[in-house]
This record gives sequence, C-alpha cells and structure tokens, in this order.
Amino acid sequence: MTAVPLGPGPEFDRIRAIARALGDRAAGLGDDCAVLPGGPESICLSIDLSVEGVHFDRRWLVPTEIGWRATAAALSDLAAVGASVDGGLVGVSAPRSDPPELFVDLMRGVGDAVQSVGGHVLGGDLTGGDRLTVSVTVVGRAVRPVMRSGARPGDGVFVSGTLGGARAALVRWQAGGSPDPAARARFVRPEPRIALGRWLADHGATAMLDLSDGLAGDARHLAAASGAHLEIDLAAIPIGAGVPAAAGSEDPAAFAAQGGEDYELLVTLPGGFVPAAAPAPGLVRIGSVSSGTGVRFFRDSRDVDLAGFDHFA
Amino acid sequence: MTAVPLGPGPEFDRIRAIARALGDRAAGLGDDCAVLPGGPESICLSIDLSVEGVHFDRRWLVPTEIGWRATAAALSDLAAVGASVDGGLVGVSAPRSDPPELFVDLMRGVGDAVQSVGGHVLGGDLTGGDRLTVSVTVVGRAVRPVMRSGARPGDGVFVSGTLGGARAALVRWQAGGSPDPAARARFVRPEPRIALGRWLADHGATAMLDLSDGLAGDARHLAAASGAHLEIDLAAIPIGAGVPAAAGSEDPAAFAAQGGEDYELLVTLPGGFVPAAAPAPGLVRIGSVSSGTGVRFFRDSRDVDLAGFDHFA
Repeated sequence: MTAVPLGPGPEFDRIRAIARALGDRAAGLGDDCAVLPGGPESICLSIDLSVEGVHFDRRWLVPTEIGWRATAAALSDLAAVGASVDGGLVGVSAPRSDPPELFVDLMRGVGDAVQSVGGHVLGGDLTGGDRLTVSVTVVGRAVRPVMRSGARPGDGVFVSGTLGGARAALVRWQAGGSPDPAARARFVRPEPRIALGRWLADHGATAMLDLSDGLAGDARHLAAASGAHLEIDLAAIPIGAGVPAAAGSEDPAAFAAQGGEDYELLVTLPGGFVPAAAPAPGLVRIGSVSSGTGVRFFRDSRDVDLAGFDHFA
Repeated sequence: MTAVPLGPGPEFDRIRAIARALGDRAAGLGDDCAVLPGGPESICLSIDLSVEGVHFDRRWLVPTEIGWRATAAALSDLAAVGASVDGGLVGVSAPRSDPPELFVDLMRGVGDAVQSVGGHVLGGDLTGGDRLTVSVTVVGRAVRPVMRSGARPGDGVFVSGTLGGARAALVRWQAGGSPDPAARARFVRPEPRIALGRWLADHGATAMLDLSDGLAGDARHLAAASGAHLEIDLAAIPIGAGVPAAAGSEDPAAFAAQGGEDYELLVTLPGGFVPAAAPAPGLVRIGSVSSGTGVRFFRDSRDVDLAGFDHFA
C-alpha cells in the first residue's frame, strides 16, 4: 500500500478504505497527481469530475464556463506538482434532450482552458446520461514533481493569489442573489497556476498542493502527507474580492479559509525564501512548519477551529 | 484540425462538430487513444465513461463487476493501439446514500482489471451525484502505436474472439430473463485484449480498433480513417455463446455484428498474414480491404444493410 496520508473526514475515510482494499493493485494514491517515470521528465496525470448539482448549476454557468471550470480544476493539480501541460481528455455525459451545441460550447471552454496553459484537447468520450457530468483527465510533465510530502520544520507556508472568492459567489447564488463580478469570475473562470507552479518547483518548493477543498482541509492533507505540523495565522490570509460582504458577521479570513475551489497553490519553502520574487499572482506567507502533526489556525495568538469541505460529510 | 475521419451517425456528428469548433485547440481526436511522444515509447491515453442506466444496471451487475467492466472498456482502447499498460485513473460519482462499501467494491473491480494486464490504479476522484458514474482514464505505452488509419487495399480484415455475446446478455435482461452464463460473462467481465494487441502491433497490423459500438459501426470508422473500402462476409463472423438463442428469428451473424461492447479487436493485416499464429483468443479472417470508401456487408454475395450502435441515434 502506497497511499499518501490524508487529513480527516468521511471523503478521505473512503479514499483510505479504497487504498487498503486495493493493496498492491494501487500505486501512489492520494497526491495531486499520479507520477510515472518517462525519460528525463516524469509524466503527471490527474482526473477530476464535475457533476451538475454538485459542482455547478446551469442557472449560474453557461456551457463554455462549465467546460473551462471543470478543466481548470484538473489543470490545477498539474500546477500543484509544478508540471507543464500536454493537454486533457474529456468525458461528457449529458441528457439526450440537450442540443448538440451544448457539447460544442462546453468543449470550447475546455479547449480555451487547455490552450491558456499551452496544452491541447487530446481525446474524449460522449455519452447519454441524466445529469450533465464532465470528467477531465489532464496530462503533463515535470523534471522534479513537487509532492505534498516534503514540508520540513523551519519552512514557511505560502498561498498564491487570494482566497474565498469562489465561496463568496456560491453563497450569493445559494441565497438567490447575484455575486460580486470579481467573485463570480473566481468561481466560473479559475486560473490554473501552471506558470507559478513551475517557477516554484524550480525555486525550492518542498511541498505543494492546490486549494480545492479549502485551506482548512487542504492544509491538513499537506501536514499529514509531510508528517509535520503547520501553524497558520488567519490575519495573514489574503482575502478575495466580495468576501467581506459575503461573510456577513463571520470573520472574512475564516470564511475564506473554509471556502473550496479557489484553485490557488498552498506551498512550503525553505526559511530564507523571498515571496516578492514570485511571478503572478504572487505569494503571501501565512505560516510556518514545525515538527509534530496536524494544523493550528490562530488569530492574535488564539486558536481558531476550522473545518474543510468534504463531499461526504 | 487534426481529427481522424469517423463513420456516420449523430454521436459522430457531435464529435465532428466539436473537432471543428476546437480547431487548433485539439490534437489527434477520433482514434482509440491519444498518443504523446515520450522517449523511445509513446504515451497512450484513453478516457471512457460508464453511466448507470446507460451502460449498466445495478440489477444486473454487482459493484466489482461495474468496476471491472468500466475499466476493461477503457483498457480495450490501449489494446487497440498495441500498447502495454501503466494503469488507470478513476473518477466515481455516486449518491451520498450509497454505503462507503460501494466505492471499495467498485474499486476492487477496477484494481483487478488493471492488475490482470500488468497495471496499477494510479489515482482517482470521488464525488457525490445522483447516478452512479464511473470515468476511467487509462495510460500505457507503445513503441509503434497502431492507429485506425493504416488499412491498405489488399489487406485482410480480422476479428479476435467471438462477437455478440454482450448483446445476447443485454437483450435477455431487457426482456426480464436471465442470460446464458457465457453471454453474461462477456457483458460483465470483458477481457481487454492487451497481449493480443501488442502481438499484432509487432506482427504487421496496419490498422486496428476495438469493437465498442459493434462491428457494423466500428468497421465504418476504420474504413473512414483509412480512406479505404472494407468488404465483410457475415458467414465468416465468429458467433458468441448465447447469440443464436438471443437472436431469435434474426440472422445470428447480423445480430452479432450489430452488438456493441464485445471489446474484441478489429484489425487489418497484409495479405500473407497467417491468423493461426496469433495468441489467445485467436483471430478469424472476415473480409478484405480494397480501394474506395465505406463498408459492404454481404452473405452469399448479397448485400446486407447493418447499423452500428449510436449513443445519440
């Protein structure tokens, strides 16, 4: 059994149970990408499902946005290991009553997303179904893939961009309103951080993952995989557009740290690293790595209890 | 635009429309696998979706069989280019009300299928949903991938194993009955022809694909991709167990040629090829390639009109 340790939660209990049952039929489960040796560069692969009613709602996204978002979510896993992008394979299941243009528009969004990071649409599968479901597998390459497991005591903890924008859009829609345009853009058109991820792999990143379940949950995955303890200061978290308004009476930083699907990078780097050198969208230091286990979130020296998103909680 | 030409039908019209819309955002669409250069061996990739109510029914298959079948269907695309198998990535969407054991059992079936051909489960994604949907992406390698496009006038046309068994099981279930056990096995546990595919790639195969939509449809894809004409003799088609009983008053060979999901190989080989040398499950010659377009099916010198399976017909 070779699964990377994961943080707590019923979704991850399922993954642990699967890894136990598979035994030596599995290899390397639980990191952002599968990594296969392939000459001077390793082949990196990741699969991501987007299901109508779970990951998106057609009242909120047009088909090109559904395609972009599903693809960007998968590409974000390549960013998280510091890989370049060859492209993606896309399976789409849709009701027979949907017009053929649905597939075309959805695939335009897929094509735009892979092209934005230098890749191509490499293949696909179309079938009937009764809920629109998009499965994207991305493939890329890395000379030195950065896994979740390399954080060491003394490293700094950094995030790219800003957090909470996707959740800010979602809560507005769920309340029947219209999101702030910048927050909406974060939800419908996340930018996979391919260039930044490659730069970080070249500049000493010790561990990296992309924020899909929210910082509160994903930081625990990184800590578990690395066998280390993370301390994260809520006051340092970069807050996305529309977050303070959407958070209401909640602490905007806690709201942002518990917001899924920002697709920013969470990365650990050796103590002397200077974040100002990083390319767009930039990095902010939010904490540090020490020996131990688990993650402590704090504000003004006081512990704050935060939960991550779980598909089966 | 670099899509391989496909045969007729609304499903393939959708794929053609997508390829047109994608333009240079796509590369190499329409063959069994995407092929990426990767050193001495090319990397071969294929994605396959299996949707409850479309590809399988839980009244007929237990979860391990659903996992095996979804995986074997994808692995069959690697067989069709003559690739070896590194493994598979699996996305599963299932109702939250399904017990965690469903995922474990399904993934055991996936693990058994990849292990049967020397591969591993490399990664996955689990999400909620309201219909069980399994997306499998397989990855493998080939020194000389055999595409659909190389059939030349004078080649012979061959199929592996026997045809029609999966359809024979399906029509029994759809009529409320119980299939012949051998036919049921063809539906629930198809064997990806990896070893045979690799042997054929080493022994001069000029074009190859796997029979997922049925010989009647898939032969048209091979003819279209190769820019050649195929003549296929129904009297030569190897008939699967349970087919004559399930075909009723229909010609069993026509029934078998229009049955999808047998996952046998359709392959063209130069005139002098001796099929008796091929490893299990063996090859039978069913026709020949000539100049022209399209496919002619015949019996006793008379044309027979056959349709392939189409998800959107």
